[in-house]
Amino acid sequence: MGRRPNKRHGTANRPDPSRPRLYGRHAVYAALDNPARRLRKLTGTHEELGKIVIPDGLQVQVGDAQDLSRLVPMDAPHQGLVLEVEPLDQPWLDEILLDPDAEAPLVLLDQVTDPHNVGAILRSAAAFGARALVTQDRHSPPESGALARAASGALEVLPWIRVVNLARALDAIAEAGYWRIGLAGDAGATLAEALSPAPQAIVLGAEGEGLRHNSREHVDALARLPIRRSVESLNVSNAAAIALYAIASRPR
Amino acid sequence: MGRRPNKRHGTANRPDPSRPRLYGRHAVYAALDNPARRLRKLTGTHEELGKIVIPDGLQVQVGDAQDLSRLVPMDAPHQGLVLEVEPLDQPWLDEILLDPDAEAPLVLLDQVTDPHNVGAILRSAAAFGARALVTQDRHSPPESGALARAASGALEVLPWIRVVNLARALDAIAEAGYWRIGLAGDAGATLAEALSPAPQAIVLGAEGEGLRHNSREHVDALARLPIRRSVESLNVSNAAAIALYAIASRPR
Repeated sequence: MGRRPNKRHGTANRPDPSRPRLYGRHAVYAALDNPARRLRKLTGTHEELGKIVIPDGLQVQVGDAQDLSRLVPMDAPHQGLVLEVEPLDQPWLDEILLDPDAEAPLVLLDQVTDPHNVGAILRSAAAFGARALVTQDRHSPPESGALARAASGALEVLPWIRVVNLARALDAIAEAGYWRIGLAGDAGATLAEALSPAPQAIVLGAEGEGLRHNSREHVDALARLPIRRSVESLNVSNAAAIALYAIASRPR
Repeated sequence: MGRRPNKRHGTANRPDPSRPRLYGRHAVYAALDNPARRLRKLTGTHEELGKIVIPDGLQVQVGDAQDLSRLVPMDAPHQGLVLEVEPLDQPWLDEILLDPDAEAPLVLLDQVTDPHNVGAILRSAAAFGARALVTQDRHSPPESGALARAASGALEVLPWIRVVNLARALDAIAEAGYWRIGLAGDAGATLAEALSPAPQAIVLGAEGEGLRHNSREHVDALARLPIRRSVESLNVSNAAAIALYAIASRPR
């Protein structure tokens, strides 16, 4: 399988993005179970380490809860496990587009930068059987402990592609046979009206900003969620979850 | 209107819960616009204070961004505004149950404690026109800056009732004519199958724990979201958003 070498690999001066520290049971167990994940060092309490099978060759250090707290952001719930890893290699978009499937939508994010939101979207995308998450390389968060925790294991299983140019990716996605829907509060159609029986690609913008003009030009339909006019928008991960549910539940 | 005096009013030794500090434009503007909100002190940058009409009698202090950072949790995005307030008085459940409306569901949370999740649920509930949020007093987060920010203004507009006993509240809700659905991953029916044309009350448990036994005994139907078996659950605010969307979109 051709995989693109991860661009961030060489940036040793930014310790967090280049060597994410995953924490918490869900995220750490999922990384240990992922054969594609290169593991660097596992730090854990005696109790938590005792519950897992340590892969051959992995550097392991025992620490108490306080030692572990120093490895992660303040108040991060590490649950006695911190795993330092290399970021995953990214699949190619072309590879993902080889087999469009009406049951496996694509989720695209236009400059959504909050790691909790992106993590929660990975989780919902995996839950609803999405094919992949696509973000713009320059405006998406790196892999991190907070993101992996919000993803609750999904970072290890859902393909995540960072592209240089989102508009160009949207062109390729249309050529592959996907129907592209951009969520926008000012759209005339509701999401239910905009859905088609074809494979679906859903595009979400950042809260407040919404979809950028250039992204709106590269979708087949704009659609809004049926919310009150007095409320400006939903949390972006909530909007993504609703879109994934609506796609999974659409009549065909 | 009879309103129950807020129980936390007197706990001066816990500064945060008894005098929440709201921050960020959305949360602060919404609180300033809420006639039921008792305001204590507004701290803001010169620039941000210049954009708003200061209510008569409100104590105001000008500070720079660093001064404001010291008033809020580390890295909290205060956007130049911090507003110290009293918690809202709570409406009575009985009052809320007087006028059941099929367009206005109730959302009940069974021991969901994360303030970001509860805030995001308030936001989605307001967006979909829910009647109220109901939580158990002892196992729900207090009003806080983080919760208000996640709620993006909805803390000021959506009635939030904290009850002593959730099972008893569920009984009263049924008597008022609501159809109660508990979300549970192991349920036989899907959410779409469990919905009824009656006013709907949706009950969600904490991630991992799920609904407690006693809550499961006090609903009319248990329902699952149509997610892959390999994924244990969704983020609870994402699950709530989906349920609210499904209720708003149900055939009647």
